[in-house]
Amino acid sequence: MKKYNFYAGPAILPASVMAEAAKAVVEFEGIGLSLLEISHRSKEVVSILDEAQSLVRELLGLSDDFSVLFLTGGASTQFFTVAHNLLNADKKAGYVDTGSWSTKAIKEAKAFGQIDILASSKDKNYSYVPKGYEIPSDLTYLHVTGNNTIFGTQMHDFPETSVPLVCDMSSDIFSRPIDASRFGIIYAGAQKNLGPAGVTLAIVRKDFLEMTQRELPTMLNYNTHVQKNSSFNTPPVFPIYVSMLTLRWLKANGGLAAMAAKNEDKAKLLYDEIDSNPMFAGVAAKEDRSLMNATFVMAEGKEDLAEQFLADCAAAGCIGVKGHRSVGGFRASIYNAMPREGVETLVGLMKNFADK
Amino acid sequence: MKKYNFYAGPAILPASVMAEAAKAVVEFEGIGLSLLEISHRSKEVVSILDEAQSLVRELLGLSDDFSVLFLTGGASTQFFTVAHNLLNADKKAGYVDTGSWSTKAIKEAKAFGQIDILASSKDKNYSYVPKGYEIPSDLTYLHVTGNNTIFGTQMHDFPETSVPLVCDMSSDIFSRPIDASRFGIIYAGAQKNLGPAGVTLAIVRKDFLEMTQRELPTMLNYNTHVQKNSSFNTPPVFPIYVSMLTLRWLKANGGLAAMAAKNEDKAKLLYDEIDSNPMFAGVAAKEDRSLMNATFVMAEGKEDLAEQFLADCAAAGCIGVKGHRSVGGFRASIYNAMPREGVETLVGLMKNFADK
Repeated sequence: MKKYNFYAGPAILPASVMAEAAKAVVEFEGIGLSLLEISHRSKEVVSILDEAQSLVRELLGLSDDFSVLFLTGGASTQFFTVAHNLLNADKKAGYVDTGSWSTKAIKEAKAFGQIDILASSKDKNYSYVPKGYEIPSDLTYLHVTGNNTIFGTQMHDFPETSVPLVCDMSSDIFSRPIDASRFGIIYAGAQKNLGPAGVTLAIVRKDFLEMTQRELPTMLNYNTHVQKNSSFNTPPVFPIYVSMLTLRWLKANGGLAAMAAKNEDKAKLLYDEIDSNPMFAGVAAKEDRSLMNATFVMAEGKEDLAEQFLADCAAAGCIGVKGHRSVGGFRASIYNAMPREGVETLVGLMKNFADK
Repeated sequence: MKKYNFYAGPAILPASVMAEAAKAVVEFEGIGLSLLEISHRSKEVVSILDEAQSLVRELLGLSDDFSVLFLTGGASTQFFTVAHNLLNADKKAGYVDTGSWSTKAIKEAKAFGQIDILASSKDKNYSYVPKGYEIPSDLTYLHVTGNNTIFGTQMHDFPETSVPLVCDMSSDIFSRPIDASRFGIIYAGAQKNLGPAGVTLAIVRKDFLEMTQRELPTMLNYNTHVQKNSSFNTPPVFPIYVSMLTLRWLKANGGLAAMAAKNEDKAKLLYDEIDSNPMFAGVAAKEDRSLMNATFVMAEGKEDLAEQFLADCAAAGCIGVKGHRSVGGFRASIYNAMPREGVETLVGLMKNFADK
């Protein structure tokens, strides 16, 4: 039975990427060795790093003003690394609090500078994305979370401001075109739209590299990794390789505009069903609904049928549909690599469930 | 042609491990999904983490006093994390400087406490391991580097002291039995004897966890990862899986005592050739020679033949034999997974080279 992984991450990857990755584990491109057992200084690995970097640049439309880094430690490490590199006691950053990940980013940043929480949707369990708040012009950066996996909301328009944005794009990078010139730093754990767990993408505008205010441990200084082209220490070779294959797949499939169209189509299919099916109800404000993670619950009075629906999903090969404990109900993560058939299968289950 | 990877790392892994890892990339144990696309909260991944942890405990003979963590960022991240967690301005640690990696560990630690360099072999380009130095009893820990990949030396006996040892075992962990009770922290990048690049093993004695002196970023606090069983954030699932397979292989092949015997046999074969072949000369002091990385050069007066020998190696499928620029000449890394035939092939090339 074909299985569909609706988990929020590590997430589904293109089947062609997985097939090629498996070959590289056995033997990399006819060199007589596995990709897992060659030096990160070998020409093969250097070429993977170069191609990955250049595909990131091409797909996101990055100018030479940006450095592209492949790091580790996930967004959780970037939460403090950003502030550690950019702030000091006299410098101020603005944060928009749109959910658990924003909250953690704020907590970690507070140790390194003045943190101004400009807006929060905590009052309604993060079911919407705040808008219309004032953004002081003296901020070093404004931190936003592109997409909120847990609550199923997404920032469809980034705030209008001259302040450079720092964005946690872990769960929606490469899902849509962006205007890169608005950003000072973009960071993303790979394990949703980019690759498997174990690599973190950081894109840093070069003038942000000159802001470092303090003596930093070498590994925490963005400059270290810029100067050594992500190979100051041994990089996570295989996760980077699988990311590179995924980037190739993105390019071959039309790039980010084509991906955005497919994502909109898949999300519409699912949200239309959520809205029209009397058994289910959406959670997030309609205008802020995420194209990556759809959160929904059983309609009022039908809550006790939730376990039955999850059992139907599991029986039909749709796994990971259970919602996060902060929201309850259901969550369907429909990242780039989720085929339309996966969403059709889930929608079919929802229709059948109403018919029963 | 069968190739042998003599690079210092990422290093050779057992062929059976690679075959099984490749299968898991296609589909993990019949579940209908690749290991690369399932959640780190799934029972499959939790079970991999548990088995990896329990194999580390069993192979190293760790008591319940130790926590076993799978982190990222390599030894380079541990260099400052250790001191960040354990020291403050009033606390002192001793360091033994046996090469480039020790030197980096010292540099990173200095930001967080008093660092006493008890001994150094820098005077002779790190060609030996210092002995007989005094170890003050008031140290919080004594930091040593188990094996020095660049210079080809290894600490065959750890210093006699009541001070707990903190050891960078990146390049010789699991190559020999150790007396774990001597250590407060053991850390190791995986990419030599444990697995592929992308995961870092940290073993922390529980009383060391209570030493944290300052507010640490959540990700840098060992306690975070102990409490969340290495899953506070998304762990590097695939590198951990390959490490777990390698640990299974280690156990199935007799554990660390058997591995030490094989490593001694392989190293003797190579060093005997270095000592008896008039074309070559060893670099490290004999009593401190590494069983993992053998450094050697062309004998005096024959230096201009080095390129020719490297060409012979490449032609015979022995790659990565060129020495590090700090030492020159040659380096053969013969970690656990290097089969005896690999060393025999290299020794054969050395014999032929003398005959020519």
